[in-house]
Amino acid sequence: MDARAHSSQEVLSTLQALVADDLKRVNQVIIDNMQSQVGLIPQLAGHIVSSGGKRLRPLLLLMSARLCGYAGDRHVPLAACVEFIHTATLLHDDVVDESELRRGKATANAVFGNKASVLVGDFLFSRAFQLMTRDGSLEVLRILSDASAVIAEGEVMQLLTSNDLETDEAAYLRVIESKTAKLFEAACQIGPVVADRPAADIEALARYGMALGVIFQLTDDLLDYSAEQAALGKTIGDDFREGKITLPVIVAHERGTAEERAFWSRTMEELDQREGDLEQAIELMRRHDAFGETLRRAETYGEIARASLQGFADGIERRTLDELISFCIARGF
Amino acid sequence: MDARAHSSQEVLSTLQALVADDLKRVNQVIIDNMQSQVGLIPQLAGHIVSSGGKRLRPLLLLMSARLCGYAGDRHVPLAACVEFIHTATLLHDDVVDESELRRGKATANAVFGNKASVLVGDFLFSRAFQLMTRDGSLEVLRILSDASAVIAEGEVMQLLTSNDLETDEAAYLRVIESKTAKLFEAACQIGPVVADRPAADIEALARYGMALGVIFQLTDDLLDYSAEQAALGKTIGDDFREGKITLPVIVAHERGTAEERAFWSRTMEELDQREGDLEQAIELMRRHDAFGETLRRAETYGEIARASLQGFADGIERRTLDELISFCIARGF
Repeated sequence: MDARAHSSQEVLSTLQALVADDLKRVNQVIIDNMQSQVGLIPQLAGHIVSSGGKRLRPLLLLMSARLCGYAGDRHVPLAACVEFIHTATLLHDDVVDESELRRGKATANAVFGNKASVLVGDFLFSRAFQLMTRDGSLEVLRILSDASAVIAEGEVMQLLTSNDLETDEAAYLRVIESKTAKLFEAACQIGPVVADRPAADIEALARYGMALGVIFQLTDDLLDYSAEQAALGKTIGDDFREGKITLPVIVAHERGTAEERAFWSRTMEELDQREGDLEQAIELMRRHDAFGETLRRAETYGEIARASLQGFADGIERRTLDELISFCIARGF
Repeated sequence: MDARAHSSQEVLSTLQALVADDLKRVNQVIIDNMQSQVGLIPQLAGHIVSSGGKRLRPLLLLMSARLCGYAGDRHVPLAACVEFIHTATLLHDDVVDESELRRGKATANAVFGNKASVLVGDFLFSRAFQLMTRDGSLEVLRILSDASAVIAEGEVMQLLTSNDLETDEAAYLRVIESKTAKLFEAACQIGPVVADRPAADIEALARYGMALGVIFQLTDDLLDYSAEQAALGKTIGDDFREGKITLPVIVAHERGTAEERAFWSRTMEELDQREGDLEQAIELMRRHDAFGETLRRAETYGEIARASLQGFADGIERRTLDELISFCIARGF
């Protein structure tokens, strides 16, 4: 781990410490609201809710509220809503991807079956809307119902671009803006909304969240080809095995020779994959600087995110949100 | 078709004629709102939305609004919401049941794949909440987010009771009240809510909807074993093949000999099914009056539904809702 990554890890700890009390309350709301007289629901939901996620989206909501000087309690259940929506999409994503591992643990659907994963996802999604309704803000309901529709569109787009090397960077960006960054955007907007801040602040934090979400997915897509991750014992190559067309693939394919393109076509479009193909893919990405290109794109979005924070008062909250940008980019190094 | 069934068919036509203009507008809202720049979404949603459903839930919402003298426009998009939630559950149900036919047409997931069905269901569900948010009534949002959570719980309960002959009538009723009747209840409540009627009217129509929904599912479960349906060319035996424990099975199993119970255990629990087993199941149900018992249960709920309408002014609306009860029961004959 280089110095840059090290200081970035500290950012995450600072972030979590800053809102530690709130985060504890969010976790309690999550546990309370995934209960049901149908025992399988908390059992299955607990499997994914407790599977070591960073709670990044709730953290963003809590921090954006704090940045805006919010002193009430509404941000706590709303942060739980955002996590429920995220968890529901994970449950449905595991089904649709036919994946069997997530963060190294068996996915919920591998343990409990596809059927239960779809239905428990539906349950958590409904719970999120029950909590929002109890909160009573139509503006929050608008933000999160809009986000949910966009996320579903993004997931369908991803389905359509899978195994299709015609997918260009613009199409890829539309997918990740929709399926990932939209919920980051929503989480960051809700802080200024509950704090009753002017539209300009809501828009600025929306821009911050959208850019941070794009960075997060860019580095996520890069890490799936990271030899360093593999050396740390993490699973890599999930996207490769599914033929998911991410930016590293797009860049390597675009810059590749005819022979290399045939390799991409065989492995990603026909899903005809053999021993050593993942290593070959990583080698081609290195050769064509696909990782560097992906990180440069992340840094561009980093500039947007940083600029979005400029209107807010200086302080530990703004500095932490600013450092979070570097953290999300540094994940990719 | 006997005279009873014939007059019942007329009820459905009367019902549809009474709210024909509204229903046309509902269909337009449905078409407008299933659009997306992602072409697969309207394509797949259209497959199920246009697959010949009776639009019973939107009809109930429109009629309950009319019964309550509602003169505004809000019932139209809200009826579309109810249909979207219903369609989303159908899409997810097709996935979870691994069924390949619905109403004799290939299910969406058989044509487009499980992945797309889950995601388009999520999209329609989100759209429903977008439309409700636009309507702006927190009371409607509460009714439909509560209903959605209960539906998901009911579907999970159904999963857990499948292939389990220990399931008794009480457990079966909890399943169908949740997975089916809850949305009927919600549809019937929204009419008096938008018409700003007192709580007693909302509760009465909730009772009507709940009872009607139970009747609807009881007869639906019965029709899956109907030789008459088979003679009309309809697919029967779907529940049998999946080992779904419905009331006809519960009654026949409970009243069966040791040998017959062994038959139910082999076919429903072990899913070891052979040529002629469906016919044998129907024969056992006939022998033990399982169909008669199911219909008597439907008639009991019919009394509850009828009583719930008594506080409303006499007129074509109340008479039609009353006759709809008989129609739903007569489907089973």
